Amino acid sequence: MKLHILGCHSATPRSTVFPSAQVLEINNELLLIDAGEGMQIQLRKYKHKFNKIQHIFISHLHGDHFFGLPGFLSSLRLIGREKPMHIYAPVGLKQIIELIFKLTQTDINYPLFFHELGSSESEVILETDKFTVKTIPLEHRVYTNGFWIREKPALRKLNIDAVKQYPEIETWAYHNLKRGKDFVREDGSIIPNDKLTLPPPPPKSYAYCSDTVYKPGIVPLIEGIDMLYHESTFLEIHKELAVKTKHSTAKQAAQIAKDAGVKFLVLGHFSSRYPDENAFKKEAMEIFENVDIAEEGKSFEV
Amino acid sequence: MKLHILGCHSATPRSTVFPSAQVLEINNELLLIDAGEGMQIQLRKYKHKFNKIQHIFISHLHGDHFFGLPGFLSSLRLIGREKPMHIYAPVGLKQIIELIFKLTQTDINYPLFFHELGSSESEVILETDKFTVKTIPLEHRVYTNGFWIREKPALRKLNIDAVKQYPEIETWAYHNLKRGKDFVREDGSIIPNDKLTLPPPPPKSYAYCSDTVYKPGIVPLIEGIDMLYHESTFLEIHKELAVKTKHSTAKQAAQIAKDAGVKFLVLGHFSSRYPDENAFKKEAMEIFENVDIAEEGKSFEV
Repeated sequence: MKLHILGCHSATPRSTVFPSAQVLEINNELLLIDAGEGMQIQLRKYKHKFNKIQHIFISHLHGDHFFGLPGFLSSLRLIGREKPMHIYAPVGLKQIIELIFKLTQTDINYPLFFHELGSSESEVILETDKFTVKTIPLEHRVYTNGFWIREKPALRKLNIDAVKQYPEIETWAYHNLKRGKDFVREDGSIIPNDKLTLPPPPPKSYAYCSDTVYKPGIVPLIEGIDMLYHESTFLEIHKELAVKTKHSTAKQAAQIAKDAGVKFLVLGHFSSRYPDENAFKKEAMEIFENVDIAEEGKSFEV
Repeated sequence: MKLHILGCHSATPRSTVFPSAQVLEINNELLLIDAGEGMQIQLRKYKHKFNKIQHIFISHLHGDHFFGLPGFLSSLRLIGREKPMHIYAPVGLKQIIELIFKLTQTDINYPLFFHELGSSESEVILETDKFTVKTIPLEHRVYTNGFWIREKPALRKLNIDAVKQYPEIETWAYHNLKRGKDFVREDGSIIPNDKLTLPPPPPKSYAYCSDTVYKPGIVPLIEGIDMLYHESTFLEIHKELAVKTKHSTAKQAAQIAKDAGVKFLVLGHFSSRYPDENAFKKEAMEIFENVDIAEEGKSFEV
């Protein structure tokens, strides 16, 4: 699992930075999380193949989180996409996209599915054989979800030295052994799986929480995950502004990471008022050590 | 009058080029013509002040000509705009923008006016004391207009040597002289204006024609203008594709420029299939000499 930042700044436009968008790489598939304006340019720049994206998750309907979507969906048509695309977004986005395509007389000729979100409870919104995605209800000025994503456990690893001690185990049996099944001899006797295989590495997990006011209620939902991307639009000196606009400070993001026992925190969604973004890292480190700041083009191994 | 190119490429996204958007500078005011995705980033990059824009002209409702608009209008709100903004665009854009603002709960707190275009005849859509804007009906896959823009004539220049021969002409009279009025002495006798002033430079004119199939019918509408921006999505080797998709070739754009007797031609809206855009210039020059290719960040003195 690898996180690639396409944009990590709040809405005010600047020439060198982009609004929220990122891709999470799982098993050679890319999950697109938020889609700020210019996100397709960033995908090209950092050489992420459009066709590896089959699922798009939109946190909320503020422009800096989805204005890149109509252009991206149009481009997919131009480059001849055939694979389906699934969009998980708050109620309303479907209406916007469909109106745009109707009035621009654009015929989206690949299957496009909208999964409209409206629940205020955490729910599983996608489950494949490789990963699971749940919403994390956040609190912002409009209806907003974060996303919790966890790999499915990998296959168990064959303990070859152990397996070789049993000549009766032929290679055709490996398939089931990797999936945790015991080996059953012809006479019905059993070799327990844990004598023949090693456990897989624990499945990786990631959560994206942006935009949100400081919300301790999300802690149980992200407990123990490997990496948390949490917004920190402001520093503590503008804490009141954070409350007023329903955003978080770097310190608050760090507190969430600490309380949830996450392994690593990535800060993002920086306001343009701060000339040096290392100040966010510095502030967070007073609470939580394993932290870094997002940056366009930067990747994080989960 | 000065033309600044923000984006001049057709829709397929690339990391280094932008879709259609440009600003025409007249008298320290900027007219925004088309607004492809990322256009606000380009405005920042080339240091054009957002607040100098009061009029936006959208040629047609294909995404590569207006997907930058919602973000730009939202940003104006964020930076506290107070001046009105006027948008001249085909019927439908208003509905899209208003739906987006409604669903994103965005309160546009500056006056925003839509002037919806639907006529198939050329019409004056804006007249100020500095310039006039007319539509140029084009032919594309959807309803499309080009835009013809001409400065109002400047004031006449005082011929100071001539004026000084008449001590009865005091400085308070200059205001009327510059506006072409004769000088009337106290006794009612007249000094004709053309003895006292010199004619101003002829007013500059510019036309934007994108997107369109080769359409000789526009020639009378752009006769003798100083600068024409005409799309050339394709080269002649792809002429059939141009006809099919209702675009033009470089040669066809040059033919229009030649037939209309324009002074200078700028080519743009290049398809991404061509590695070297100088090929557009080369092809056009066989028909019309005064030609150059648009380029992001390039400016042209009209």
